[in-house]
Amino acid sequence: MGHLKQQRESEDSWYATAPDRQRHEALLRKALDVILEEAVFAGTSRDGKVCEWRDPEELRKTLDLSLPHGDGKEPADDATLLRLVRDTIKYSVKTGHPYFINQLYSGLDPYGLVGQWLTDALNPSVYTYEVSPVFTLMEEAVLQEMRNIVGFPVDQGDGIFCPGGSMANGYAISCARYHYFPEVKTKGMHGLPRLAVFTSEDAHYSVLKMATLLGLGGDSVYMVRTDARGRMDAAHLDELVTKARESGAHPLLVSATAGTTVLGAYDPIEPLTAACRRHNMWLHVDAAWGGGALMSRRRRHLLRGVHLADSVTWNPHKLLAAPQQCSTFLTRHTGVLGGAHSAKATYLFQPDKFYDTRYDTGDKHVQCGRRADVLKFWFMWKAKGTLGLEKHIDHLFDNVTYFKEAIRCRPGWELVLREPECTNVCFWYVPPSLRGQQDQADYNDRLHKVAPKIKERMMKEGSMMVTYQPLRGLPNFFRLVLQSSATTVEDMDHFICEIERLGCDL
Amino acid sequence: MGHLKQQRESEDSWYATAPDRQRHEALLRKALDVILEEAVFAGTSRDGKVCEWRDPEELRKTLDLSLPHGDGKEPADDATLLRLVRDTIKYSVKTGHPYFINQLYSGLDPYGLVGQWLTDALNPSVYTYEVSPVFTLMEEAVLQEMRNIVGFPVDQGDGIFCPGGSMANGYAISCARYHYFPEVKTKGMHGLPRLAVFTSEDAHYSVLKMATLLGLGGDSVYMVRTDARGRMDAAHLDELVTKARESGAHPLLVSATAGTTVLGAYDPIEPLTAACRRHNMWLHVDAAWGGGALMSRRRRHLLRGVHLADSVTWNPHKLLAAPQQCSTFLTRHTGVLGGAHSAKATYLFQPDKFYDTRYDTGDKHVQCGRRADVLKFWFMWKAKGTLGLEKHIDHLFDNVTYFKEAIRCRPGWELVLREPECTNVCFWYVPPSLRGQQDQADYNDRLHKVAPKIKERMMKEGSMMVTYQPLRGLPNFFRLVLQSSATTVEDMDHFICEIERLGCDL
Repeated sequence: MGHLKQQRESEDSWYATAPDRQRHEALLRKALDVILEEAVFAGTSRDGKVCEWRDPEELRKTLDLSLPHGDGKEPADDATLLRLVRDTIKYSVKTGHPYFINQLYSGLDPYGLVGQWLTDALNPSVYTYEVSPVFTLMEEAVLQEMRNIVGFPVDQGDGIFCPGGSMANGYAISCARYHYFPEVKTKGMHGLPRLAVFTSEDAHYSVLKMATLLGLGGDSVYMVRTDARGRMDAAHLDELVTKARESGAHPLLVSATAGTTVLGAYDPIEPLTAACRRHNMWLHVDAAWGGGALMSRRRRHLLRGVHLADSVTWNPHKLLAAPQQCSTFLTRHTGVLGGAHSAKATYLFQPDKFYDTRYDTGDKHVQCGRRADVLKFWFMWKAKGTLGLEKHIDHLFDNVTYFKEAIRCRPGWELVLREPECTNVCFWYVPPSLRGQQDQADYNDRLHKVAPKIKERMMKEGSMMVTYQPLRGLPNFFRLVLQSSATTVEDMDHFICEIERLGCDL
Repeated sequence: MGHLKQQRESEDSWYATAPDRQRHEALLRKALDVILEEAVFAGTSRDGKVCEWRDPEELRKTLDLSLPHGDGKEPADDATLLRLVRDTIKYSVKTGHPYFINQLYSGLDPYGLVGQWLTDALNPSVYTYEVSPVFTLMEEAVLQEMRNIVGFPVDQGDGIFCPGGSMANGYAISCARYHYFPEVKTKGMHGLPRLAVFTSEDAHYSVLKMATLLGLGGDSVYMVRTDARGRMDAAHLDELVTKARESGAHPLLVSATAGTTVLGAYDPIEPLTAACRRHNMWLHVDAAWGGGALMSRRRRHLLRGVHLADSVTWNPHKLLAAPQQCSTFLTRHTGVLGGAHSAKATYLFQPDKFYDTRYDTGDKHVQCGRRADVLKFWFMWKAKGTLGLEKHIDHLFDNVTYFKEAIRCRPGWELVLREPECTNVCFWYVPPSLRGQQDQADYNDRLHKVAPKIKERMMKEGSMMVTYQPLRGLPNFFRLVLQSSATTVEDMDHFICEIERLGCDL
């Protein structure tokens, strides 16, 4: 340890000296081997587990997460570091595993991974052209093409990458607020009427969170009823707008959803556009989840009318399977992002630079330093072509069709929606002991407990991960969500067999 | 091309079949070799350039950023993809190069890089324990230890990782607002008095941006004067608080800065604490840049009193040289983050899970899906030990001392501050043609043009990158900022010689 300690203590010059460099290079290569073999290859293999479950307290004892402090404060040696890499992999959920269908992201795309690793090696921050020339132009190219695909008018509009779809939805509210009340930038909400935001009861909770953060308050978010297929009821929207106006509020924005989180419903954009025009409101489409359908000629009808929206949230890290995280906010309005958010800091956005400073795009964001989330997706797009992305989307929907058909006539399987629109399939698995007892008073209570129990079992075995949730009084049901292109129809069969195996005795 | 196209078109099952897998693995390994050799090793070598400058329009022609669309929509072959990797590296700024001292992040720490690459391979999103067990506990461990180092009371308080220091400063305003006016969560700013925020004229622009985003408005941000050393003037703060109150505003928060962006000044926290107690305001310390000094026994006095603050922004990706991005918000108040931001979405934060759901920490954030920014820093901390991080900080400050002394008596070099506090050194380089002409009417105008010209030359040669800016009427000056542990005293000499070489004929 004495020698090691001495070595480490000279490490204030990481790359400065040749011996340091050799040692770092050796560790880097060894760690990379472990990462490739254990996380990338074994971690995405059907032969391996999706997770190696430990309770929080147990995991804390198993994995040495503590940081060196006190008198010792000793650094770890390379063998220990490699063990920590291995343990981190072992106890982490394998989100790239084909049997991980628990969230609205999954899979481990090889091109996306190359893009991430390259981004990390270049360690950029995207705010000025001078420090991020390639990433700046890459963002421009990707955002422009995404706006084209949405159908926004050519040569106008704007877009940014955001740290998640929630923030993108927040940008929508911020842009709408500035668009109608530019004085908000200096005067704030003080003196403005109460601003009302409308979204469906099945919309993502970020609309509520962002309205709260932006100072509108949760009470100003009106939850519009959904129809039997989970889509926003345009007639009820009209009622709520009237109600809001009668209570003295100013109707600001409708956030329609293209692909709701649980049911995967697509709100009807065209009638909502009409309502927004009638009431002079901003139409935002939260297509964080379902936006990927725009890449498919067979599926883009799901977002019919999206080109009429004022803004769109679209996360390539969801249906398009880019690595976490890759979220965009797109708008048809040129200048509104800069108008609402710029601060013109002279230490960063110097006007006397020697190049065209319109390429210094950072001031449109509320972030200053910002990771580049574009390269991974751009690289995937280059590798697959637009046709490859379309095939990916079609493949996902085909798998959903297969799964839906496979469970339709199977005893104990009940769809929540007969015709799901996105790649969500929501269903109850009714164990044999509960079948035919729908009329009993405690049926729903008992069914409510089935999914959590099956989930517990699958987590403890590590055999797959799928999520469950209640919804508007309905007992807990499972939600299958597909976005990993690694999943096949055989995997669909596996999911069915596995849930039956884990739940048939309940 | 025919064969290739056929291959690619079957790629809707990335990892599904053995031949796909072999092909992906081969590309991944080849790309990794390029990334290691060209970005990691050559990109951080003093023998290489910091940047390969191209004007935006020129770069657009050189590097094929376009996305495949139209009828062709062809995917790129592997040779093309590898060329794109190489070109992306070639034309990107080498932020890990020891001569890149342009921003408040730099360097390419080998342990940090391992942590990033491992994070990417695991592709996590941190909101619930079940999908991110290791990252959840890792965040808890790091945030707890950072709060200990700040000096917050043990066993209370909270913290989160944020997408940048700007967002962390936004969390401070949001938490303060909820702390004093919990009804804001439902009612919004409507009906509240105008809320006033105080920060220094040299504070980071994110305070203004975030006050605007949160609906307070830019006029509610009061810019407190700084003293001759760039530190907030506590007496002027008192005046402004009185003025704000007289105008009907409610003084909400003071955002002190520990390490201002340009001058590197540390606001005097203790007198500001007293002012906040007197006026019942929240004291936030934006230590995004200068917080790293807390790791050094020799330097932590710069933040004397920080343990008395209500909250702190501290970015390990700045002085502590973690990869971009790694930003934290820390607060002494337990529960305020959840109180201000939770939405209790039942599809994600199910209360009937089989484990202790207090470990599902996502609802404290305004983001939903969220990249794990903890592992890279945790891994660096493990590798270096707390002592290693301390040595890193001391090394940076020692280099600053060396640089400052080296230029002090050198003709044509003038310090903006005689005694800079953080690792910023701001200076003018006065070319021979301007020396001794301080009394001439156009001296400042001419000096103002020197730094941009030198900057243009260094960018076009790619020999180094350092930034310049004006400040409160002062003509453009350079700002040296150190946080990369790769920089040595020889590098300080290089910076001096290089600026003289590029500017002596101006």
